[in-house]
Amino acid sequence: MFKLFKTQGRARRGEFTTPHGTAQTPVFMNVGTQGAIKGGLSGDDLKTIRCQIELSNTYHLHLRPGDELVKERGGLHRFMGWDGPMLTDSGGFQIFSLAKLRKITEEGVAFNSHIDGRRLFIGPEDSMRIQSNLGSDIAMAFDECVGIPAEYDYVKKSCDRTYRWLLRCRDELERLNAREDTVNPGQVLFGINQGATYKDLRTEHMDAIAQLDLPGYAIGGLAVGESTQEMYDTIDAVEEHMPKDRPRYLMGVGTPSNIIEGVARGIDFFDCVMPARNGRHGHLFTWDGVINIKNEKYARDDGPIDSRCDCPVCRRYSRAYVRHLFAAGEMLGLRLAVIHNLFFYNSLMERIRSALDDGTFDSFRSTWSGVLDRRI
Amino acid sequence: MFKLFKTQGRARRGEFTTPHGTAQTPVFMNVGTQGAIKGGLSGDDLKTIRCQIELSNTYHLHLRPGDELVKERGGLHRFMGWDGPMLTDSGGFQIFSLAKLRKITEEGVAFNSHIDGRRLFIGPEDSMRIQSNLGSDIAMAFDECVGIPAEYDYVKKSCDRTYRWLLRCRDELERLNAREDTVNPGQVLFGINQGATYKDLRTEHMDAIAQLDLPGYAIGGLAVGESTQEMYDTIDAVEEHMPKDRPRYLMGVGTPSNIIEGVARGIDFFDCVMPARNGRHGHLFTWDGVINIKNEKYARDDGPIDSRCDCPVCRRYSRAYVRHLFAAGEMLGLRLAVIHNLFFYNSLMERIRSALDDGTFDSFRSTWSGVLDRRI
Repeated sequence: MFKLFKTQGRARRGEFTTPHGTAQTPVFMNVGTQGAIKGGLSGDDLKTIRCQIELSNTYHLHLRPGDELVKERGGLHRFMGWDGPMLTDSGGFQIFSLAKLRKITEEGVAFNSHIDGRRLFIGPEDSMRIQSNLGSDIAMAFDECVGIPAEYDYVKKSCDRTYRWLLRCRDELERLNAREDTVNPGQVLFGINQGATYKDLRTEHMDAIAQLDLPGYAIGGLAVGESTQEMYDTIDAVEEHMPKDRPRYLMGVGTPSNIIEGVARGIDFFDCVMPARNGRHGHLFTWDGVINIKNEKYARDDGPIDSRCDCPVCRRYSRAYVRHLFAAGEMLGLRLAVIHNLFFYNSLMERIRSALDDGTFDSFRSTWSGVLDRRI
Repeated sequence: MFKLFKTQGRARRGEFTTPHGTAQTPVFMNVGTQGAIKGGLSGDDLKTIRCQIELSNTYHLHLRPGDELVKERGGLHRFMGWDGPMLTDSGGFQIFSLAKLRKITEEGVAFNSHIDGRRLFIGPEDSMRIQSNLGSDIAMAFDECVGIPAEYDYVKKSCDRTYRWLLRCRDELERLNAREDTVNPGQVLFGINQGATYKDLRTEHMDAIAQLDLPGYAIGGLAVGESTQEMYDTIDAVEEHMPKDRPRYLMGVGTPSNIIEGVARGIDFFDCVMPARNGRHGHLFTWDGVINIKNEKYARDDGPIDSRCDCPVCRRYSRAYVRHLFAAGEMLGLRLAVIHNLFFYNSLMERIRSALDDGTFDSFRSTWSGVLDRRI
């Protein structure tokens, strides 16, 4: 399902085919947490912003409206009106970042819902069943996401357990895909590498999960407290141990520069809530850096957010108008900001792919890495 | 600029031409208070919902971002990305409903901004200058909107002053339209009839303003506390005194049944924030009545909001999905609800016009009046 077309250094140009279409890689996945992109974006808007893979959150959808309800509606694609590729996370990260009173055992994790306090339990089989009910194209393995810094001994034990959980995920998804009433029988499982910033644990765990010959592998547990350099060093260490013929997904990362640097280190998939969240706060990406559209200096600025951007917001509206919408508290401001920022990210990936196609990625990297994140 | 094609009883089928295009009447104007429809709708969305005339609020835009700023940007049409017909209100209604510490004199109204408490003053000339700066196609006269019930003597004095203000509005707009730097030299003025529910004051005032031969006339000061029957009785009394060859606009009205009854009484233009506001609260119009989409009973309802509706929401999404978005607090829920409700209103007007074209309006009225407003 993954075709690797070309490499430049460690950077890779490829494509990944799912039951709902093919995504060109490197790709940035657009996050629609609760079956919709925050900022009021619909399934149609995902096409407008040139989304290639939509990412939905298992934890949120399990709590509300419930994955069984979504399955009865024909799965999440039909429910939310998006017919392109979709990945679901395992719910693990949200359990470890949002839910209260967690208790981890070999079986799984008990926790209290952040919405109504209900006591709930999710283990590897539950996560697979929920993701199968949602019917995404790519299911992520249920893992423990350990915060950084963490004790070596704890991380080692956690990695071992995450490995045992992966075996259970694999078996359970195989069983679910064979069921007659499964929503998406072509759903595949990506494994997740853990090990905090301990390189020996990272590579040992990666070697173990690579043996399972899964359709894809993610690097998890980064962007959770370590420095950017530690993140890059960890990717460098793990990457050599990742199968060359499988896509690599760096979870929850990151800024435009993080993405360029991730591509340079052999990563194919990215996701991050940051562009949509920053957009809702008025922080807009441009090819000159990040502007705060709420700034008074844009009140009479008739130019587009970015004169080099071809998004529907930049083609039609001025900075002055978008600033007015933010100042007036109009919902349209948030919507236009999110459309612009996600379009910017998806365009960034298009330009990265073009540079790889043309063999000019090194030059692209040196021109833009470090530039696009700065506040101007 | 107004062509009357056909009548059925007092109901009228016509069209009104502005510098930004022609609107078919009877028409419902879609309210974009601060240069955007609440619920995250853009200028493009106005086309999608088949908006024929957009209505912007002078009071809000004067306060934020400021009408001078909008004029510098080329006017409100360009600023907000809407190239169709636009009407601006005079600011009067908001001064009387939102602003604090009002003091009315012959000159105009002093008041405190509801945003930052600034002391401000708007008189007839100011209202015209602001509306001229915004560059709408139809400017409304600056009037006093008296709450109901009100003392006869006060209403009489207020009507006389509103008449004197209208003369000042007319002269000022003529002067502004002749200026070289005017945004929209084809901007026209509609007069507004007042008089609370006192029929003699209403008709006397209407006769006086009709003499001025303005391009259109509105009935103001209704839907502010009187009963529905009092409203209909007032329209009945005034209508006979309105010029037949000018459009009539019933301000701030109303429910679908109010609109059908208004058309039956000879009204051509309507506006109301209700469909957008109700939408944001999950109250959705259908041809069976109003549903509350937040109700648990829609959680597993795979049908569209209204199976007889052709709007982009009903063509694509289920009640279950829209309900989920409301339950999860996703902005997209508000947006889809507002799109549906405004499309419903614009479709209602299309069906009213078709019925008038076909000579079947009486039957349309007896089938739908009273039905569409009920909660089901």
